Formats: sequence, structure tokens, C-alpha cells
Amino acid sequence: MYVFFRGEWVDENKAALGISDLSIQRGYGVFDFFRVRDGVLVYVEDHLERFFHSARIMHLPVPHSKEELRRILLELTEKNGVTEAGVKMILTGGYSPDGYEIANPNLIIIQHAMKAPEAKPMQIITHEYVRDFPEAKTINYTAGIWLLQKLKEAKADEALYVKNGEASEFPRSNFFIVTKDNVLKTAARNVLKGVTRDKVLQLAKLHYKAEEGIVTAEEIRHAKEAFLTSSSKRILPIVSIDGRATGHGKPGEITMHLLKLLREFEDAYIETRR
Amino acid sequence: MYVFFRGEWVDENKAALGISDLSIQRGYGVFDFFRVRDGVLVYVEDHLERFFHSARIMHLPVPHSKEELRRILLELTEKNGVTEAGVKMILTGGYSPDGYEIANPNLIIIQHAMKAPEAKPMQIITHEYVRDFPEAKTINYTAGIWLLQKLKEAKADEALYVKNGEASEFPRSNFFIVTKDNVLKTAARNVLKGVTRDKVLQLAKLHYKAEEGIVTAEEIRHAKEAFLTSSSKRILPIVSIDGRATGHGKPGEITMHLLKLLREFEDAYIETRR
Repeated sequence: MYVFFRGEWVDENKAALGISDLSIQRGYGVFDFFRVRDGVLVYVEDHLERFFHSARIMHLPVPHSKEELRRILLELTEKNGVTEAGVKMILTGGYSPDGYEIANPNLIIIQHAMKAPEAKPMQIITHEYVRDFPEAKTINYTAGIWLLQKLKEAKADEALYVKNGEASEFPRSNFFIVTKDNVLKTAARNVLKGVTRDKVLQLAKLHYKAEEGIVTAEEIRHAKEAFLTSSSKRILPIVSIDGRATGHGKPGEITMHLLKLLREFEDAYIETRR
Repeated sequence: MYVFFRGEWVDENKAALGISDLSIQRGYGVFDFFRVRDGVLVYVEDHLERFFHSARIMHLPVPHSKEELRRILLELTEKNGVTEAGVKMILTGGYSPDGYEIANPNLIIIQHAMKAPEAKPMQIITHEYVRDFPEAKTINYTAGIWLLQKLKEAKADEALYVKNGEASEFPRSNFFIVTKDNVLKTAARNVLKGVTRDKVLQLAKLHYKAEEGIVTAEEIRHAKEAFLTSSSKRILPIVSIDGRATGHGKPGEITMHLLKLLREFEDAYIETRR
């Protein structure tokens, strides 16, 4: 596979960053990720918008305009001849002479073949944590990676960040509950504003009451349904939280309805851009 | 300069990490840093101990024993022919096939010529933050790097992390105050246990009352003296905090006495190992 590496087209196995790069020295960088389906870059305008937003928060100038990046992404997809894939854009702090100050950021765009997501039911646990710079999609997954061992021990699929009784997000996805009164709720603060999260909120508002606000640990315990959203996974139903069944321990009705709506919305998006 | 890169001796400019490395993908890794003086690895046993401790916390197996690493560090110093230098050992999450799970960690040891530190007086600001995994020296400096712009705007030298009225540490150094009653205080929790911090505590206890505990924002305001400690800087006196003079806005007497004691202690360490 080709990657777009520091302004050039390079074979993925030959792309290597000098060790003075601030990602290696200080874990400093931002990224974004989205799917390619039927050769179409899914919601690329939203992801580019967020990528630039993350970069701005973290003081990293992007070495291309949004239009240029979009052309590069299309060229990458053509060169690699993939129709179903995931694309990752990483922007690091650059080759830093003192290993501390931000230099000219290095941009890397990677593409991997990827199957369409399936709605596998999730068993989750909660973990006391809140991300730094939640509004930015930084490469700092120190907590997320560290948690993998805890997940394995707990035989769970994902860990939900909860801080002072307030739920925020998963390391790589957003969190929704459906209350007993059929109201959808997702955290308004301390979260990355997921592209799929926004689509789901929009779609949900057409059929249900849906709100962004504070989701408490108490509300989670009494939720009728719960699910997660992400660009790579769309919607995954949550069937247990900290070992306790959510709803009846099966994917919820509203959850599956929203997944159906989201798929149809995505189909229409793809259709008009193919 | 030579670096020890993934088991081989490589020219620093040719050492490059494949982009699947977990430091680039997820900012995941640990490191340690110490000085070389007169060809002697200063407090190397403490730094190796801490490096292994950090790696253990973050689930990263170190690919060498402490004894092997010590020999590699000595060989590096010989090959580079440096007598005064800084040495950095970085251990990343390795080349991760899925860009998320820990693989075989990559070890990189870098050496740069470095002058002995000078006791430049510091003007600091406080910043509401506490590090994740404070006991581990992870490569995650997202907050520290982000703060550089804030420091420039405030015309300050360093930012002290304070959370809920409790001071912890600087991004790269520890923090001490001297109270009006000549008691030394430094944070016991939410800090990396600095090697210099420990030496200073030991030395201070021979001459003063010194304690690890909670250092409140209130105590900082009434402190008679304040200083920071780090392996690369030894002791730096702090003369102002958030724009307000500390003590009389000059390096404190006890601070300078401790720096003298620390230098003598280091001299003796070097003398016996040369």
C-alpha cells in the first residue's frame, strides 16, 4: 500500500520517521480516521474540518489546505485501488531539534483495507478518567492502550471513561444511552465530537427526543438501552456495563432502529457521490 | 553521534522508526534521562531502576536486563567520545500490526552533548492539571508542549501543575518550597519521583526539617523560598509565581545551600566512579 509521507508517495513499509520527531520524543500529534466505501471518502468534509480543528487546538499548522488534502486522499485511494478501507491522517509535532519545541509538523496518511463494521453486542466496563484536551483528537492514547490489559482481565470489549460520576466517552468512540422514557442522551462536554455521534443525534431527533448534556453513572445504571458510535464501527449495541445487563441484555430496539437509519443515511451519501 | 537503535549501533541521522510504531500511532512509550559527567553516568542505577519501573507500569517489557543496559550505555558514551552529555532512553509500544495493541517494544538510546546546568532564577506560572500515570515517566507531554505557547505569552519559564488547590510537579521537574519556619516541602503524590528530588530530600534532612506531603496553593503563596529539581538542571531557584515575587524575588538562602550540598554530593559520586 502507498502512504502519503511528508509530501511524497512512499511504500508503507519504507515510511519511517526520524527519531527526533515529537511523536516519538513526546507523544505529540493529532490525527483523524474515516472510512472509504465504494471508493467514496465517507463524510470526508466533517473529518477534514475536525482534523484542522484538532491541529489548531494543539498549535500544529497543517501543511496543506483542506482542498489539497481532499485531492491527496482521493489520489491515495486511486493509487491503492481500494474500495473498502480505513484512512488515517496523522500530523506530528515534527523534527524537533531540542526534542521539546514544536517544529514543522510531519503529515502521514495511511490506508488499510477494512471490512464494513458489524453490529457485535458490546460488554463494557467503566474506568475513572477524563481525557486531556477532549475537544482535540490527539494521538495520546496512554490510558486507552494501558486499559487493554484490564479489559482482557475483565473479559470486556471496551472501557467507558467516567469522572466524578459523569460519563464522557470511550477511548475511540462516543457513548449514548436511551432512558426508560425513550430519551436519547449523550455527554455534551469532555468528549471528542464524533462525526458519527453528530449524524446519530441528527437522525435521532427526527424520531425521538435526543439531548446532549450530563450523563451520570446513576442514569447509566437505569438505562433501557446503551450503544457506542464511531466512524469505523457505526453503532454497536451495549448489552452489559460493569457486569450488569443493560436493558434485557440484548441489543435495544431504538439502538437497532438508529443503526438502520444511519446505514440508510450513509447509503444515500455514497449514492450521490459515487 | 551514535544511537543504540533497536539492538544496533546507528548514526543518529539514519535512525528512523517505522510508522506503525505505537509512539507515532498512539503516543505510547516511556523514557528516562540522565547526565554524563566526566564520562561517568550520573546516578545511572537510580535511572535504570525508574526506567524499568515506568516500563512495568505501562506493560512494556524491556528487551535487556539492567546490567546489559548499563554496558550499552557505557559503550555508547565511549563510541561517541563525549564526557559531558545527556542520555535519553526511549521504549515505545513497538511496531503494532493494528496500530493499537502493544507489540515488541522498540528501544532507542540517544546521546547529546550538554553543558553543566546553571542556577538561572525561574519565573513560573501555575496551570490546572495533573498528569496521567504520574508514577511513570511516559512520553506523553501533550500538556507540557501545549503549554509552551502559554509560557511565551506569560513571559514565564516553567508551568507548575496544580489540581484542586494541590501542587504536584512541572512537566519535566519537581517542585519544592521552604516555609517561613524553614521547613522544606514537596508533593508526595501525583508526581514522578525524581532522582534529584530524592537526593535533595536526603541532603535536606541532614540540615533542615523536610517532608513529603500535600503542598497547597495557599502554602505556595506564603512560601519563603521555592525551587525546582531535575536531573538535567539540578536545582533552579524560583523567584516569582504567577507574577508575584517569591521570598524577596531573589534565589533563597536555603535553596542555594542545598544546591551547594547537591553539587558536593555529585562531585563525590563522580570521584569514586571515575
